[in-house]
Amino acid sequence: MKALRFVDGALRLEELPEAALHAGSVRVRVRASGLNRADLLQRRGRYPAPPPYAPDRPGLEFAGTVLECGPGATRFERGAPVLGLVGGEAQSEQVVVDERLLLPIPAALDFAQAAAIPEAFATAYDAIVLQARLAPGEDVLLHAAGSGVGSAALQVVRHAGGRAFGSSRSAEKLRRLTQLGLYHGVCTREGWSSALLDALRAASKADGFPVIIDLVGASTMPANLQLACPGARIVLLGLMSGPKTQLDLSQLLMKRLHIWGSTLRSRSVEQKAALLASMQAALWPAFEEGSLEPVLAESWPVEEAERAYARLEDGGDGQTGGLLGKVVLSWD
Amino acid sequence: MKALRFVDGALRLEELPEAALHAGSVRVRVRASGLNRADLLQRRGRYPAPPPYAPDRPGLEFAGTVLECGPGATRFERGAPVLGLVGGEAQSEQVVVDERLLLPIPAALDFAQAAAIPEAFATAYDAIVLQARLAPGEDVLLHAAGSGVGSAALQVVRHAGGRAFGSSRSAEKLRRLTQLGLYHGVCTREGWSSALLDALRAASKADGFPVIIDLVGASTMPANLQLACPGARIVLLGLMSGPKTQLDLSQLLMKRLHIWGSTLRSRSVEQKAALLASMQAALWPAFEEGSLEPVLAESWPVEEAERAYARLEDGGDGQTGGLLGKVVLSWD
Repeated sequence: MKALRFVDGALRLEELPEAALHAGSVRVRVRASGLNRADLLQRRGRYPAPPPYAPDRPGLEFAGTVLECGPGATRFERGAPVLGLVGGEAQSEQVVVDERLLLPIPAALDFAQAAAIPEAFATAYDAIVLQARLAPGEDVLLHAAGSGVGSAALQVVRHAGGRAFGSSRSAEKLRRLTQLGLYHGVCTREGWSSALLDALRAASKADGFPVIIDLVGASTMPANLQLACPGARIVLLGLMSGPKTQLDLSQLLMKRLHIWGSTLRSRSVEQKAALLASMQAALWPAFEEGSLEPVLAESWPVEEAERAYARLEDGGDGQTGGLLGKVVLSWD
Repeated sequence: MKALRFVDGALRLEELPEAALHAGSVRVRVRASGLNRADLLQRRGRYPAPPPYAPDRPGLEFAGTVLECGPGATRFERGAPVLGLVGGEAQSEQVVVDERLLLPIPAALDFAQAAAIPEAFATAYDAIVLQARLAPGEDVLLHAAGSGVGSAALQVVRHAGGRAFGSSRSAEKLRRLTQLGLYHGVCTREGWSSALLDALRAASKADGFPVIIDLVGASTMPANLQLACPGARIVLLGLMSGPKTQLDLSQLLMKRLHIWGSTLRSRSVEQKAALLASMQAALWPAFEEGSLEPVLAESWPVEEAERAYARLEDGGDGQTGGLLGKVVLSWD
């Protein structure tokens, strides 16, 4: 089978041996694999896949059809369309995966759309609903609202009864995001001025935000401390702008803020399975009826993986613009 | 009645009118008032008391006897020895206070010792037991272990079945704290070297700390991110070293750390009452039998309040040394 591998920082499409099927696992013929910033970091050697995944094989999510079921794997029939969330090796023509890490593909979605769901929606659902415990009517501020996770998160906020505020460096993306349910967008191309902070706080219901979902990190965390209302929950999910930042802890103390980091990749199979089951119960009906939708920016044949990686690298939130939602590789 | 007031940054002992007794409240003849860093900040205009307390009258805790009970106040008899936790005005010869903010003084403690309990033990108990939910056997790292809250916290950790590790700028204080149950002390007079971080992490059970209680802030938060084990809870309770700090958020993200700030002062009467009731149930038997003890550094007659304030200001964790635990004012 074919699979992507990193060799000294280069991306190679190679022929690799098929993995053995074991108890409780399923072999899936992959038709589309999602691309994530974690893959870009892994390529630079900065975010190795956790065991048992190979450190040089990228991919956290996929969609395809069931080829073969191992002993005791009973949840899916041969040929069933599935999507899955794993810790690595998903940018491959085949994956062998614990069946608990698979969900059925919602009707009416194609494989590329389905491959845009797992990481973005599981991350957003976990952070907003399970961790921050968003209450109906609460305002949520999302940074990098046009990213894969951001565009999923704003839909999850709306679905859970909150109002989604979002930042992006592109005013054009913010306009397009309003069609997905973004309530209020703020363009941060010029950085966070105190006028911008004041206006955003004034637009919120409670003179600040009870929930902030941050994929950006260094450049947004100081603003978060200003924009949070007392007792707010701030979830850090990414570091698009880097890790090192200068903070004034007096806001953290006096407003009794809660800040925590969250990643899916390092979690156990059991933890991921529980998250997927919860997400299926909460969100699948909305996917079926069309009130939630995967946001697919671009789909590239796997032979053009290098271009797909480059698109995610420079198009995410920068000057070249236009990339709204997920980038996916297809294995047709 | 006499009371302390700040007048243009100066501390004055003045004659003030008695406050009116209202429904559910009790008038207490104060015999001792605890001193806190919040009082030092309030004096400089940087931490005004929340309403209904006067912004220019210090004091968050006291011990004394009940003089008079208002309509519907039935929990204490006249003459009963009580201690109390309030948002201001406790450095007064008399306080009028909601009876739910009072607890009986544990037997065998004098008023100065009793006045050393409320703020330190309620803060420590709330942070360690109610918020961080310390599990038996967990290691806890306490910064400024020799402070009022620190010396209470290490006893609460021990009482809850954890091991207390503590930092202090004074090796002498750390030696004395071992008698109160400190398991392992680390002297930070020279700052946080990587050798110090390595040694402290190596001394912990889980290659890092699942719970960190931080009263210091700017100078310790970067070390906290290094010393925390995955999933750790870090509670910020004070900013002795100031608020501004440079942080590497990658630790927060990759270790999925939880950091939050907590203060008692701004909470409602109901919230404080619930905390006091929980603390009484959990800790009062241990105070009665002597396995917990207030740590009284120094007690000063109120006429020497200026010296008492100066002692807390420069003796807390500095070169002059010697101040272990609480400073109290007496009203005899």
